[in-house]
Amino acid sequence: MKIVVMKFGGTSVANLSKIRDVAKIVEENSQKNKIVVVLSAMSGVTNQLQSYVEEVSSEPSRETDLVITSGEQVTVGLLSMILNREGVKSLPLLGWQVPIITDENHEKGRILNINNETIYHHFKSNDVIVLTGFQGISVNGVITSLGRGGSDTTAVAIASSLKAVRCDIYTDVEGVYTADPNVEKNAKKINKVSYEEMLEMSSMGAKVLQTRSVELAMKNNLTLQVLSSLTNTEGTYIVNENKLIEKEIVSGVSYSKNESKITISGIPDKPGISAKIFGLMASNNINVDMIVQNISQDGVSANMTFTVLTKDIELAKKTLERNNNELNYTNLSTDSNIAKISVIGMGMMSQSGVAEKMFKTLADKQINILAISTSEIKISVLIDKKYTDLAVKTLHSVYKLDNK
Amino acid sequence: MKIVVMKFGGTSVANLSKIRDVAKIVEENSQKNKIVVVLSAMSGVTNQLQSYVEEVSSEPSRETDLVITSGEQVTVGLLSMILNREGVKSLPLLGWQVPIITDENHEKGRILNINNETIYHHFKSNDVIVLTGFQGISVNGVITSLGRGGSDTTAVAIASSLKAVRCDIYTDVEGVYTADPNVEKNAKKINKVSYEEMLEMSSMGAKVLQTRSVELAMKNNLTLQVLSSLTNTEGTYIVNENKLIEKEIVSGVSYSKNESKITISGIPDKPGISAKIFGLMASNNINVDMIVQNISQDGVSANMTFTVLTKDIELAKKTLERNNNELNYTNLSTDSNIAKISVIGMGMMSQSGVAEKMFKTLADKQINILAISTSEIKISVLIDKKYTDLAVKTLHSVYKLDNK
Repeated sequence: MKIVVMKFGGTSVANLSKIRDVAKIVEENSQKNKIVVVLSAMSGVTNQLQSYVEEVSSEPSRETDLVITSGEQVTVGLLSMILNREGVKSLPLLGWQVPIITDENHEKGRILNINNETIYHHFKSNDVIVLTGFQGISVNGVITSLGRGGSDTTAVAIASSLKAVRCDIYTDVEGVYTADPNVEKNAKKINKVSYEEMLEMSSMGAKVLQTRSVELAMKNNLTLQVLSSLTNTEGTYIVNENKLIEKEIVSGVSYSKNESKITISGIPDKPGISAKIFGLMASNNINVDMIVQNISQDGVSANMTFTVLTKDIELAKKTLERNNNELNYTNLSTDSNIAKISVIGMGMMSQSGVAEKMFKTLADKQINILAISTSEIKISVLIDKKYTDLAVKTLHSVYKLDNK
Repeated sequence: MKIVVMKFGGTSVANLSKIRDVAKIVEENSQKNKIVVVLSAMSGVTNQLQSYVEEVSSEPSRETDLVITSGEQVTVGLLSMILNREGVKSLPLLGWQVPIITDENHEKGRILNINNETIYHHFKSNDVIVLTGFQGISVNGVITSLGRGGSDTTAVAIASSLKAVRCDIYTDVEGVYTADPNVEKNAKKINKVSYEEMLEMSSMGAKVLQTRSVELAMKNNLTLQVLSSLTNTEGTYIVNENKLIEKEIVSGVSYSKNESKITISGIPDKPGISAKIFGLMASNNINVDMIVQNISQDGVSANMTFTVLTKDIELAKKTLERNNNELNYTNLSTDSNIAKISVIGMGMMSQSGVAEKMFKTLADKQINILAISTSEIKISVLIDKKYTDLAVKTLHSVYKLDNK
């Protein structure tokens, strides 16, 4: 039995007419394979539910998850209804009916287990299973949600669990681009990209796919496709690097504006201090991104800079201040007026001079670099937020990514 | 452990501000008793969901129930959030989490069993359980809904199962009135009424309580109170007739305009023919209300008149026509331009002349009676719809129900 998982986001199911369009795409695909469709809630509904919750409390709880996971139930019911009326044998399922077991970390649940036997069982008498994205249930029977973009995670997790031939992520763009087309008009659609590159692009701000879902696909060697629900064209395939014939030196330029920088200086330079700092962040569920550490000039204390999501910056600051009796730093400063610019490419590994070119290009444009972080396949820098577009456009051109 | 069940309908939870008002009422009550709150969806939401479903298909299914039961999840989550923030220990529960087991009759599910152990268990660490009304789950794990007004049924069923001291049904009116206050300005609020009277009133069109929920309360000898969520005053208690000190001869006048009449004439008068007709109705899930049968003048054939909800009239007609090879009637006619007027009262049983007074009053006003049906505690007549208000007002005055 060949299974394809198809995921549609909130804008693709924003109203009944759009859900009918989705039904057509699903129907077409169901003639070749068994299909699991994973749906988000109607985009307007999610915002409404979110605003109710925020008006009452900002603290994630059993209740907030109950409220914000109610929307997928509607889209799943409606799509399955339409499919059945069109003669496609379809069955709707909620997260807990599979079940998709998660931990009990509200609004940030992580999937622990999926009982794929339920899906196989229902495929005996159905060609399509329409499953709610975003939601799960803990072993204690408490409903949970997977966080922003959680439907991608649901889709990839179920596809991995079922050993699906492919997981198609439908969205309102035609694929992954060499840069954000809203910023760089000459951005090109990429045909194939490796998990590693996509991972760097996602975590660096390319909004098409959630980092977690790419990680999960990579771990399970699952082919992803990002494509548009509006046009009937192939999108971008995200695959194992072995499947890439030609490895681009730089395959894309991305940016993120929703991070803030924390700099701690005068930390006693002794073992265990980083573990302590990032342990504090982790125990408060604050994700840390870039980390740059330097020995200071006196040789006995260190400076550390790292970035967190801007929404977490206040909590991060307070947590560090509260624990300064253990940390003993001398100064702490934060800056939310920054952007992170990254260039990404598998070819970088075997090519020198990529970083130098980036630094020189930015310097030529008088853009000051506040911090640098590199991996085998990407270079990221922090700059002043106001230079974001300029940096993206210039780098896109310098690395010859412009569409001809 | 003393438990009170409090049910709030869609208009009482129509937005966040109203849900906060509900929280205040619940908080007050939770100081004296353990509370189960049963909620409907926000009134606007239910209509929206219903309209989605109707746009796709009118046929009740697993999918339609999935869509229309999503709204209670939101109100239950929000109320429990607010209560917890106010320091009231509260837990939200969905129908399937109890579970409330129903049959698999979609959009008309009947409750088969309630696992009240779940509620007792959660009362160990909570003072309030906030439960979704309207929804249940079949033994096969399929989500179901209980039909219009199903939240009343949920409230009464859970109250009966938990042997609650009382089930309070909050609504936007202050109780049960001797007649619809919109029609009869002099209508009075009734302080106490028997189950039987309430049952007749509900099925006769008094919109405050669903018939099923009154039946269920009566069966379990559960005291109901109908009261307003807007004013802090006692409502109408619905109790065992033994608890009524003074039995009114006539306690109310009610009307219904949403029924239609079917008349079948020339039916062979042989055993089993009624069973066949009403068997056909039942198997199509058509509820039949008034039934009047007469032997026709020839002594070998019969005429039968009965009423069904106007929404079911076409289906009823088609069903009968399709089966006329078995039924062998000579003529079938329908009439939707009718109203049913009823006078109801426990005192009627021991008092003669009540029916005569009704018929004479209507005759004096030149209102023609199309059919009559009586029980021990009510008399119903069918009349031309346009005389509804006149009949209600006149009878209300004749039976001395007017507020002084």
